[in-house]
Amino acid sequence: MKSIALLPGDGIGPEVIAEAKKVLAAVGAAYGREMTFESYPFGGAGIDECGDPYPEVTAAGIRRSSAILLGAVGGPRWDALPLEQRPERGILRLRADLDVYANLRPVRVHDVLLSYCPLRPELAKGTDLVIVRELTAGIYYGERGRSRANGEWQAYDTCTYTASQIERVVRAGFETAQKRRKILHSVDKANVMTTSGLWREIVGDLAPEYPDVKVHHLLIDNAAMQMMRSPSQFDVLVTENLFGDILSDEASMLAGSIGMIPSASLGPDVSLYEPIHGSAPDIAGLGLSNPIGTILSAAMMLRHSFGWEAEADAVEAAVFRVLEEGYRTRDMTKVGTEAVTTSEMGSLVAEEV
Amino acid sequence: MKSIALLPGDGIGPEVIAEAKKVLAAVGAAYGREMTFESYPFGGAGIDECGDPYPEVTAAGIRRSSAILLGAVGGPRWDALPLEQRPERGILRLRADLDVYANLRPVRVHDVLLSYCPLRPELAKGTDLVIVRELTAGIYYGERGRSRANGEWQAYDTCTYTASQIERVVRAGFETAQKRRKILHSVDKANVMTTSGLWREIVGDLAPEYPDVKVHHLLIDNAAMQMMRSPSQFDVLVTENLFGDILSDEASMLAGSIGMIPSASLGPDVSLYEPIHGSAPDIAGLGLSNPIGTILSAAMMLRHSFGWEAEADAVEAAVFRVLEEGYRTRDMTKVGTEAVTTSEMGSLVAEEV
Ligand SMILES: CC(C)[C@H](C(=O)O)[C@@H](O)C(=O)O
Ligand SMILES: CC(C)[C@H](C(=O)O)[C@@H](O)C(=O)O
Repeated sequence: MKSIALLPGDGIGPEVIAEAKKVLAAVGAAYGREMTFESYPFGGAGIDECGDPYPEVTAAGIRRSSAILLGAVGGPRWDALPLEQRPERGILRLRADLDVYANLRPVRVHDVLLSYCPLRPELAKGTDLVIVRELTAGIYYGERGRSRANGEWQAYDTCTYTASQIERVVRAGFETAQKRRKILHSVDKANVMTTSGLWREIVGDLAPEYPDVKVHHLLIDNAAMQMMRSPSQFDVLVTENLFGDILSDEASMLAGSIGMIPSASLGPDVSLYEPIHGSAPDIAGLGLSNPIGTILSAAMMLRHSFGWEAEADAVEAAVFRVLEEGYRTRDMTKVGTEAVTTSEMGSLVAEEV
Repeated sequence: MKSIALLPGDGIGPEVIAEAKKVLAAVGAAYGREMTFESYPFGGAGIDECGDPYPEVTAAGIRRSSAILLGAVGGPRWDALPLEQRPERGILRLRADLDVYANLRPVRVHDVLLSYCPLRPELAKGTDLVIVRELTAGIYYGERGRSRANGEWQAYDTCTYTASQIERVVRAGFETAQKRRKILHSVDKANVMTTSGLWREIVGDLAPEYPDVKVHHLLIDNAAMQMMRSPSQFDVLVTENLFGDILSDEASMLAGSIGMIPSASLGPDVSLYEPIHGSAPDIAGLGLSNPIGTILSAAMMLRHSFGWEAEADAVEAAVFRVLEEGYRTRDMTKVGTEAVTTSEMGSLVAEEV
């Protein structure tokens, strides 16, 4: 029996979570698996209900769960709040609290989606990569501040990494590569940053332990360029928090819509699964959103948290079958495809499962 | 009379500088302009000649010059040196020394180059943008260090900005936009970084002084995505040092080859012009490199440092005429084009001028 904590959050969060739950229920029925679901307030919804984007009740609830599925957070209603009180801060606190240091963001340009990719098809074809982003350190969590000196404001942010923070995520990168095509690109800015120098050193020190993996070092500026020039060269990329944020959003475009991309944030205890898209408050409640990123995040949960490989494969296969049949949510409809609502898409995938 | 300091640097640096000099000489002859040229050691060449990537003799020489044209620096021979002694450090010291805070990187997908762009032509067509990158502060220049604590290494880098450092480059962004299509995208990570919060505030404070410019705020992750999705939406982007580094390398791919992209680094005194490509030591001396980025940098010098608009226009027009005639250096040859060497390309452009 697995207990899944749902954090629907804000905007389109609740509607995409509802569809993922539908698909998980279908998995349970088809494979005789028991799963329970419990929803908790989070993000803007947490602020509204409990005055905190990451309320006590939520923190306590997820500690008792087997895995967490998150929708999306944020919206204009909370944008005026100071940084420390905003919905996004709930995400950062949640990541730190769970210590989910390895954020996996797979990007796959499935043939049926090739026509959605902004790149020329011959460059994008066959792209199948995973970005392993460090998620609990770096400039997101370093000391920061603002002060007045010499009659003007100044501000600072600190990027910090310890060797062990680097080592564990780099190992996750190597291990991910070992299960795939065995190519690892480590991305840093070692010609400028001291944290990157340490990062590169540790990658070099660990490489002999993974002799089957071919390692490349790439500067982040070059990586951003290569991602546009020839993304199919990549298998696994491992990088620090901020670079991973930038590079994974860039890479997500290759799949045609950011609504397609799932993520898994793995840590020592409970892991966290969420689509990489935002809360899109402008289209919330209209049936226009794409639940596939969330459904594929749920598949990652089956695989990584529960070890249910067959079930995960079934969900992924179902998603691509529905896409091959021509069904698309409104972010991806075009001539020759059939437009469906968020909820219809969820039902189609659930039926396929 | 204008005196131009040449810093050829390493790898392909000397050969691309030679071609730009050829074109500048043609401009002088055609328009009756006097220019003198003086070369100084810099980068790896500085280390080899004087034991310093930015030697005294070079620092003194450029102070007496009207403008500086730089080739490229770095190479495997100096890669084993510690960070503080490497060729790249010469660039960072030079930028700081000259206080060239506004780095302009124009990217234009000229119709004749559309077939080189990795994006689908209909998405790339008409792209004509300038990235204004802050160049003398941020994480490149903040305090950094490495230490042992609790039995392990740790490292940190600090990103710092003062209000006046932000204000002057943001003004450069607004002013650049005013001379163009009057759209300014300010790129930051204001949902996480305190320096970005200050940045966004200052952009907001200055906006009323430029009522003709339409301002948008974009997170860096979203900007990296939009650059791949629809680059033609951009006119001017203004951003901090590291984000500008990443975003401009990504954008450079749109023009088909990084060898095409010039840059101007503007400051209160002497300004600095350089292609954005690296030193490509593997192809140095073989006539394979593309001198156009350097030639277009020289054109920016004529415009920004000398105020010679007609001359700058003439160089840019000459470059695109030569490309329209089908001539390409080896980075860009394909069926239907005529392959030329670095030096032939320089001569072709010089003749057109
Ligand atoms: C919401 C924001 C703080 C977050 C991040 O920058 O990590 C988001 O962009 C992401 O990538 O999950
Ligand atoms: C060589 C390196 C330090 C430099 C930078 O990061 O600024 C380069 O990438 C650039 O963009 O000019």
